[in-house]
Amino acid sequence: MAQVFKTLKGFRDFFPEDCATRNYVFDVWRRVAVRYGFQEYEGPVLEPTELYKRKSGNEIVGQLFCFEDKGGRDVSMRPELTPTLARMAAAKQRDYKKPLKWFSIGQFFRYERHQKGRGREFYQFNCDILGEESVAADAELIALSIDLMREFGFTSDDFSIRLSDRNAWTDFAAESGVGEDRMTDFLQVIDKLEREKPEVTEEKLDSLGLTLESIRDFIGGGAAASDRISAIQSDLDARGMGDFVQVDLSIVRGLAYYTGAVFEVFDIGKGMRAVAGGGRYDQLVKLIGNAEMPACGFAMGDMVITDLIRETAHANEKLEASISESGLDVFVVIADEEKRTDAIRLVQELRQNGLATGFPLTPAKVGKQFQNAEQAGAKFAVVVGTEFPETTVKKLADRSEFTCEATEIAGRLLA
Amino acid sequence: MAQVFKTLKGFRDFFPEDCATRNYVFDVWRRVAVRYGFQEYEGPVLEPTELYKRKSGNEIVGQLFCFEDKGGRDVSMRPELTPTLARMAAAKQRDYKKPLKWFSIGQFFRYERHQKGRGREFYQFNCDILGEESVAADAELIALSIDLMREFGFTSDDFSIRLSDRNAWTDFAAESGVGEDRMTDFLQVIDKLEREKPEVTEEKLDSLGLTLESIRDFIGGGAAASDRISAIQSDLDARGMGDFVQVDLSIVRGLAYYTGAVFEVFDIGKGMRAVAGGGRYDQLVKLIGNAEMPACGFAMGDMVITDLIRETAHANEKLEASISESGLDVFVVIADEEKRTDAIRLVQELRQNGLATGFPLTPAKVGKQFQNAEQAGAKFAVVVGTEFPETTVKKLADRSEFTCEATEIAGRLLA
Repeated sequence: MAQVFKTLKGFRDFFPEDCATRNYVFDVWRRVAVRYGFQEYEGPVLEPTELYKRKSGNEIVGQLFCFEDKGGRDVSMRPELTPTLARMAAAKQRDYKKPLKWFSIGQFFRYERHQKGRGREFYQFNCDILGEESVAADAELIALSIDLMREFGFTSDDFSIRLSDRNAWTDFAAESGVGEDRMTDFLQVIDKLEREKPEVTEEKLDSLGLTLESIRDFIGGGAAASDRISAIQSDLDARGMGDFVQVDLSIVRGLAYYTGAVFEVFDIGKGMRAVAGGGRYDQLVKLIGNAEMPACGFAMGDMVITDLIRETAHANEKLEASISESGLDVFVVIADEEKRTDAIRLVQELRQNGLATGFPLTPAKVGKQFQNAEQAGAKFAVVVGTEFPETTVKKLADRSEFTCEATEIAGRLLA
Repeated sequence: MAQVFKTLKGFRDFFPEDCATRNYVFDVWRRVAVRYGFQEYEGPVLEPTELYKRKSGNEIVGQLFCFEDKGGRDVSMRPELTPTLARMAAAKQRDYKKPLKWFSIGQFFRYERHQKGRGREFYQFNCDILGEESVAADAELIALSIDLMREFGFTSDDFSIRLSDRNAWTDFAAESGVGEDRMTDFLQVIDKLEREKPEVTEEKLDSLGLTLESIRDFIGGGAAASDRISAIQSDLDARGMGDFVQVDLSIVRGLAYYTGAVFEVFDIGKGMRAVAGGGRYDQLVKLIGNAEMPACGFAMGDMVITDLIRETAHANEKLEASISESGLDVFVVIADEEKRTDAIRLVQELRQNGLATGFPLTPAKVGKQFQNAEQAGAKFAVVVGTEFPETTVKKLADRSEFTCEATEIAGRLLA
C-alpha cells in the first residue's frame, strides 16, 4: 500500500466544523474592528528574511520557516505582521490621512515546539493605530480589545486588562544608574519576574546594581508611577470600561521594540494566560521604513481564544448558537422522481431568492432524505411529490407544516 | 540610509482599498457556495512536497516554493488545494454523509514568471463534490459556477461555460488504435489544438496514427459524442441555465488527472480567458488517500476575475456600490473639547448599538473633523458641542440635519 499522507506537525486541517469555529472567531474580530472604525488590510505571507532580522535581530532566524527561493532570495514565511505593516505604512505614508486605524486577519508561521495553545501555524488578529502619538490611541485599542472579549461573551469575571508602561521602567532604571547598554537585560529580568526563582532574580538585579525589594516597591506604587497610565485609565473610565483595567507594572511584554504603554488581555477565569497583548512602538516604522510615525497596536491569536471560548460556558453557547444558525434554509425532498426536473427548477428558484437550498443529487428514499435534511441543519423541508405544483413545507424544529404552491414558497419563508 | 524593504516579486500588499475588493470577491464566493449548500473547510498552507509529486509527477517541483524545514522534512507552500482535499476526505471518509459538498477560500503559491493575471501568490475558491459518481454532481457545480458569475453581475454576454468530456476523447483515441501509453501525449495534442500551428499538430497526430481532419470531425460532432454531456445539459436546462453552456470538445484541461466531464468558465466579452475551470477526477482520492471516492470540482482564482470585474462596467458598479456601503455609520464631531468625556461615552454607546463609529482622538478644528468624517465614508456626523446633551445629527449625503438628545441618537439612526 502506498504511503498515507499526514498533516505536518503543528499544522491544522480545518474540517467543516473546525472551519465554522474559525470563521466565528474571524467574524467577531472583523465586526468589532469595523465598529471601531478600523479598516482591513493584508500583507504577503512571504517576505525577505532581512525584514524580520531588522526588527528582532539574527536570533529570530531560529524560529522561522525560512529558505532560499529559486531566485536566490532569502525569504521567510511571516512569523508576525508588524514589520510588514511598518513597511506598508511607510511606503504610502503620504496617501492616507493620519491616524491610520488598520486591522488584519491572517496566518502566521513559527518553527516552535508544538504544544497546547501554540502551533507552528496560527491565525492572528492585528489591530494598530499609526501616526498618532497621544495615549488616546492606546486607550482606543484597549477599549477595542475589551469589546472583542465582550462580543465573544466574556465578562469581567473572565478577563482583565493588565496595563503597564515600559517607559516607567526605563525611567526607573536610568534613575537607578542602569546604563543604556544594560537596559534590555534589565527589562528581561522584569519580564521573567513572575516565573523566575527569587534568588536568581536577586542575583541578576545585583549585577545591575539593584535590589528585588526596590523593584517590588516600584511595582507596588502602580499607577502612580506613570502619567501615561493615569491618562489611559481616565479615558477608559469615560467609556465605562475602567473596571476591566488593572495596573500591573510587572508586565513588560517580551518584545524589545515597545516604547510606552503595554497591555495584555489576561484570562483570570481559567488558565491565567495572556489572550492578547500589545503596546506602543514609536520607533519601528522609522527602523523598517525610514518614516517618522508613532504607532501602537495589539494582536490576538486564534488558538488561546478558541480554547478559552470552549472552556467558558456562556462564551461557548454564543459560538454554538452562531454555528447552528448557519445550516441550510431549505432541503427540497423529492418524493416522486417523475417530478425531479420540477424539483431542480424549484431548488434554483429558492437559491435565487437567497435561500441556502439542498436536494438529493440522486434518487433516495424519502426517510433518508429527511435524515439528510436534518444533518445539513435545514430549517425547512419542502416535499415535491405527485401533487406538484402543490408542495408540503415542514418546519423541522417543531414538525409543523403547511401546503402551498411551489411559486409561493420563497415568499412565505422569507416573510 | 538603511535599506528600504520591498514586497517580493509576484506578491501583493493589500492596502485597505485593495483589501475591500478582495473581501468583496470572497463574500460573493462564500455567499453563493452557502446558498448551494456547500460547507467551508480549509487545509494547511504547508504540506509535504511528496503530496504534490504524487499527483503531478516530479516536474511540479520546478514550480513550487519548496524547501527543507528545520526538522529535515521536504515541504512546499501549497500550489493548489485538491491533493489536500483528497487527503482530508480520505482520512475522515466514514465521519461524513456522502456526498460531501465542500468549498474553500485560501491562498496558493507558484514560482512562476510574474505576468498580468498571474502572480506567485493568489487566492483561489475551490468547490468540490466527493462521494457522488452521478453527473448530477457535475451539473450542480456548473450551475454554481454560473451563479457565481451572475452574482458578480456578469450576463450571458460576458461569459459562457465551455463543456467537454475527457472520456469522449479517451474512448475516441482507444477506438482509433492509440495505446494507453500514448494517451497523455494524445490529450496534450488536443489541449494545444487552438494554440499550436496546424502543421505541428498534423505531425504529432500522424505519429499517433491519426489525422487532423478526424479530430476536427469529432469536435464538430459536439454533444452527440457523449451521453454524459447530454445529461449535464438536460440538468442545466431544468435550472434555466442551458443557454450558458457551449459544448466544446477542444477543451481537455491541462491536468492529467481528469476522468470525465471537464468545463471552463470562459470570458467571451473581454479577454477570451478561462476565469475558472474544473471537472471530474474519480481516481485522485484513491491515489492520495487510498479510498474509493469519485469526485468532481472546480476552482476560480482571484486575479482574473478581479481584472474582469474591473473591465466590465455593470460588474464594476456592483463592486463599487458594495465598497461604498462599508464606511463608517457615524462620526462624532467634538465641537467643544470641554465635552470630550461625554463625546467618548457617546461613541461607546453608539458602538454598543452596533454602529461603526469614529471620532477625533485628539482636538481638531470642526471643519477638519467634517473632512475626516467624509473621508471615512461616514453616513452621519453627530456634533457634540456646548449644548450637550442636545446634539445635531447631519446626514452627510444631503446635508439634512436634526437635533436630538444624545441618548436618542442610536434609536433614531437604527430606526
